Amino acid sequence: MTPAPHLLDQPHHDGSEVYVPPGTPHLGDVVPVRLRVPGARREVWVRTVRDGEPMIAPARLDRSVGDEHWYVAEVDVHNPVTGYRFLVAEPGGYRWLNGRGVHARDVPDAADFRLSVHEPAPAWTASSVVYQVFPDRFARSCGHDGPPPGPLPDWALPTAWDEVPGARGRGVGSQLYGGDLPGVESRLDHLERLGVDTLYLTPFFPGRSNHRYDARTFDHVDPLLGGDEALASLRAALRSRGMRLVGDLTTNHTGVAHEWFDRARTDVGSAESSFYHWDDGEPGYVGWLGHASLPKLDHRSPELARRLVEGPGSVVARWLAEPYALDGWRIDVANMTGRYGAVDLTHTVARTIRETMRAVNPEAVLVSEHFHDAGADLVAGGWHANMNYSGFTRPVWTWLVEPGSSLPFLGMPVPVPRRGAGAAVATMREFDSAVPWSVTARQWNMLGSHDTARIRSVVGGRERAEVAAALLLTYPGTPVIFAGDEGGMTGVNGEHARRTMPWAQVDAGGGPDWDAATFEIYRSLLAVRRSSRALREGGLRWAVVDDDAVAYLRETSDERVLVLLARAPWSGARLPASLAADGAENLYGGAPLRVGPGGVELPGDGPGAQVWRLG
Amino acid sequence: MTPAPHLLDQPHHDGSEVYVPPGTPHLGDVVPVRLRVPGARREVWVRTVRDGEPMIAPARLDRSVGDEHWYVAEVDVHNPVTGYRFLVAEPGGYRWLNGRGVHARDVPDAADFRLSVHEPAPAWTASSVVYQVFPDRFARSCGHDGPPPGPLPDWALPTAWDEVPGARGRGVGSQLYGGDLPGVESRLDHLERLGVDTLYLTPFFPGRSNHRYDARTFDHVDPLLGGDEALASLRAALRSRGMRLVGDLTTNHTGVAHEWFDRARTDVGSAESSFYHWDDGEPGYVGWLGHASLPKLDHRSPELARRLVEGPGSVVARWLAEPYALDGWRIDVANMTGRYGAVDLTHTVARTIRETMRAVNPEAVLVSEHFHDAGADLVAGGWHANMNYSGFTRPVWTWLVEPGSSLPFLGMPVPVPRRGAGAAVATMREFDSAVPWSVTARQWNMLGSHDTARIRSVVGGRERAEVAAALLLTYPGTPVIFAGDEGGMTGVNGEHARRTMPWAQVDAGGGPDWDAATFEIYRSLLAVRRSSRALREGGLRWAVVDDDAVAYLRETSDERVLVLLARAPWSGARLPASLAADGAENLYGGAPLRVGPGGVELPGDGPGAQVWRLG
Repeated sequence: MTPAPHLLDQPHHDGSEVYVPPGTPHLGDVVPVRLRVPGARREVWVRTVRDGEPMIAPARLDRSVGDEHWYVAEVDVHNPVTGYRFLVAEPGGYRWLNGRGVHARDVPDAADFRLSVHEPAPAWTASSVVYQVFPDRFARSCGHDGPPPGPLPDWALPTAWDEVPGARGRGVGSQLYGGDLPGVESRLDHLERLGVDTLYLTPFFPGRSNHRYDARTFDHVDPLLGGDEALASLRAALRSRGMRLVGDLTTNHTGVAHEWFDRARTDVGSAESSFYHWDDGEPGYVGWLGHASLPKLDHRSPELARRLVEGPGSVVARWLAEPYALDGWRIDVANMTGRYGAVDLTHTVARTIRETMRAVNPEAVLVSEHFHDAGADLVAGGWHANMNYSGFTRPVWTWLVEPGSSLPFLGMPVPVPRRGAGAAVATMREFDSAVPWSVTARQWNMLGSHDTARIRSVVGGRERAEVAAALLLTYPGTPVIFAGDEGGMTGVNGEHARRTMPWAQVDAGGGPDWDAATFEIYRSLLAVRRSSRALREGGLRWAVVDDDAVAYLRETSDERVLVLLARAPWSGARLPASLAADGAENLYGGAPLRVGPGGVELPGDGPGAQVWRLG
Repeated sequence: MTPAPHLLDQPHHDGSEVYVPPGTPHLGDVVPVRLRVPGARREVWVRTVRDGEPMIAPARLDRSVGDEHWYVAEVDVHNPVTGYRFLVAEPGGYRWLNGRGVHARDVPDAADFRLSVHEPAPAWTASSVVYQVFPDRFARSCGHDGPPPGPLPDWALPTAWDEVPGARGRGVGSQLYGGDLPGVESRLDHLERLGVDTLYLTPFFPGRSNHRYDARTFDHVDPLLGGDEALASLRAALRSRGMRLVGDLTTNHTGVAHEWFDRARTDVGSAESSFYHWDDGEPGYVGWLGHASLPKLDHRSPELARRLVEGPGSVVARWLAEPYALDGWRIDVANMTGRYGAVDLTHTVARTIRETMRAVNPEAVLVSEHFHDAGADLVAGGWHANMNYSGFTRPVWTWLVEPGSSLPFLGMPVPVPRRGAGAAVATMREFDSAVPWSVTARQWNMLGSHDTARIRSVVGGRERAEVAAALLLTYPGTPVIFAGDEGGMTGVNGEHARRTMPWAQVDAGGGPDWDAATFEIYRSLLAVRRSSRALREGGLRWAVVDDDAVAYLRETSDERVLVLLARAPWSGARLPASLAADGAENLYGGAPLRVGPGGVELPGDGPGAQVWRLG
């Protein structure tokens, strides 16, 4: 077979340290930005947008290394978010280089590179790997595997630990398995063995469901989870292991049983009556997606801001303080928070939350849940990062899905389509290009979550699951692992994916629901990530995008790592020999990096994953 | 040669009446949207974004006509601008259809179709053709062709009418040719003969330059142009011919000699001192693009709003009242108006202007000058439309530019590149797709203006200039003709393009600077546009996009027009025979539409333009 073409002859820029000095610029700063141009020397300009008007300034050739030429230009940080892109003069015309790649035609500004004066997510998130736990399903402290002991609330359907949750129907929100925070605390060894360092807990406030996204109060931890003391104890246990803790807050709605909604309904004159969107139809208020159980909050209310998001007395602030000392919040339904009809206060709410958090703990992270096109919401100085379903999970699924799968595609009326890597990478680049690199580098990338099918059920086996894990753990951003994925657990949708951890099998080193080999794959890949600053903080340069394989470089100023992922056997490819001029060390996968007469030879086997550190 | 492929087998939707009911929806309306699917029947859904969350609803098959299937779905206008796109299930996956076309991968929302509750530009603009006049250069009333008679202001370099303006250097703003409003009034027969119906005048306020974008006052018409009475008289003369009049207002800056700036500088306590951006460096205030002659207005000042843009006493309102009764404003440097550093009030200013105009004359049009990516500014309920350099002028130039041209490309450090139609159309579709159809259908499309080279100098001859004119006059939007282009006048940049009209040659039926054949081309194309509602109001369906040729359909519920444009000989193409099932009438170009055994045969000659009305 003819080797697949490579992309390393293209000009390249991204926001990583090789191209842009680290640190957050201030208004008025002048920032040098660098462009890598392989091959012939070119005339190069940078186009910056200033107050809505483009300015074009020449870049100068800074140095040439072999046949790679480095240009540098200056960007004046005149606006809070300053867009720029490069113009490369070439025979017969010119091409633009923006976040989506090179274009031999004129393009809008949407995919311009961006410098932002807004502080990105705190530095610790760059080297962090997050472990997501759905508290009812992770581990429990009651000492047996039967239905959880009482007293239980009226809505609960007590369920034995080993029972598989229903995938749909009325019971899905009510099956109570009795996982709790002391249970989580008792299993921190598992997290440490895996190598994750941040625990993200879905809501711990009491509700009328097993998922607790229908809070009755934001003042206390659900007694079913062990109450406030259990959270404080878990926090202390995490701290002693050097681990972080992120909570989950619903700012879009409360439960219908929330104490605020209770007062709002019973007393029209109450402060709380301004907290909700009322309307004339049944049930008299606006519910999230029409659910009467989830009345939507109206962020026009200044008193709601004070209680929920603004200032040291707010819910947002209080849980960041001792003894809970959360290291951040994940914001549920962030995409709809503050939006209703002609009202759009999302950016205001997001900025208020960030400001409040900064005052309590400048190292806290603020992550939005936005399943869709979050671009505009991520450049406004509010959310630090997003749960990256659109720019990561969805395209990865389309590339690695089991051929012939009929799994529904995340809320769509169609199955997950199987597409070539070209389609997946184009989508990833397009979503990435809508945000500054400082956001891309801290996005929460996931292969799945409590709201989706599990990756093992999507890809249909260990081999492609390994490719998926290798992509997750070598890609820019903060990897997030939904508890159980590391053991190859299955689940055909979000409800079904909320299976309990099979601790007996975990402890026994495997079983029908726990694939110990997959656990070792995750453990190894986590160790590789820990060992490589380039994998944690490096830029991203696509080297090969073939139907069945991709290769990319992750680069810092002192390290260069090459990642090769194949979902199936493919033609292989040849990269410039200079890449491996100083040798290469295999970090994962076990294959040596061969250099033949035509250059570096990427092997054509698959499925599989290889990671090399280039000398 | 093998015929070029056609695109009429693709699903299609746009915002025109064939697909969306005419009229501006209100919040809460439910709007049926239609999708055309040629070939096999498909499962189709519409994806609407509501408060930031997508909703997917099935479309139903409404009817099938031959092998064309029409689906209809409902869009709930829940937000002021509601985005939607179509999901078409197909073997092996699905494709999205948005404003850029079909995509076999997931895409962000940027190119979604949009329903907007904001009133579009008034209906009269849809059937209007605008004629742009730069008053100093169009016609004068002094009765001779020598340097204009005095008294003249100190800055003026009096220049004889036939002298070619300098293309660069200090004199370009000072050469005063003495064109005036009585001159314009005396030449309205020319406009009528050409067939245009709206006169757009660049500024008529006095300044210290021939272009008058450096106003000294907004209270009076420049006496050099004939003063207030001359404008009132011109207005009356236009009205008697059924013609409209649009003015030009600079809201981004004033001249340094403006009466407001004078007071602002001399009296720090004056109201006017809040009108400008002051800074510490030289000259002590912010000038537009650093020009000290053009101090930038600070739209944070409520008193500036009252004087300039807000309410019946404002500059914006007063000139819309009798006896001047402007039918609209073109806003200079609209892209920077209200923007400076961390301040971004552009949308607020634009909405205020529109509101003010609506109160005086709900039929007035508000057009922005934004040379670049105006998308976000055009969906905010402010500017009705934009001078469409990015979505029209620039891509058209790249397609029709004379091979080997070295003309600089509109402010870029490179010549106009010559590219295939694929590149041009992709750019046009990408910019179009950023705004609702109600904006696309009223964009001010130009082949050039007082700020650019003239189209004749770009394309280098009558044949490609005819193709350009045919594109301008058959494309969705409001065509704008820069006075003189209709006679094939030349100009290598904006300054040089501001040549005086050679009336002696015009009156004589031609001469070295006046190509009477080009005038007839424009006159004929304008008549074709007037004769066809589809060309004025129809949708846009691309049929062929080949390197050297494009063909497209403009369709209303009762008319279908096919346009074929070629810049050079090409391979020709075959379209489905059903298009010409009921015959075809040539409206322009003279070629019959042939139907062969393989379908409708588009001829491969070029350069040239053909327009057919299909039966």
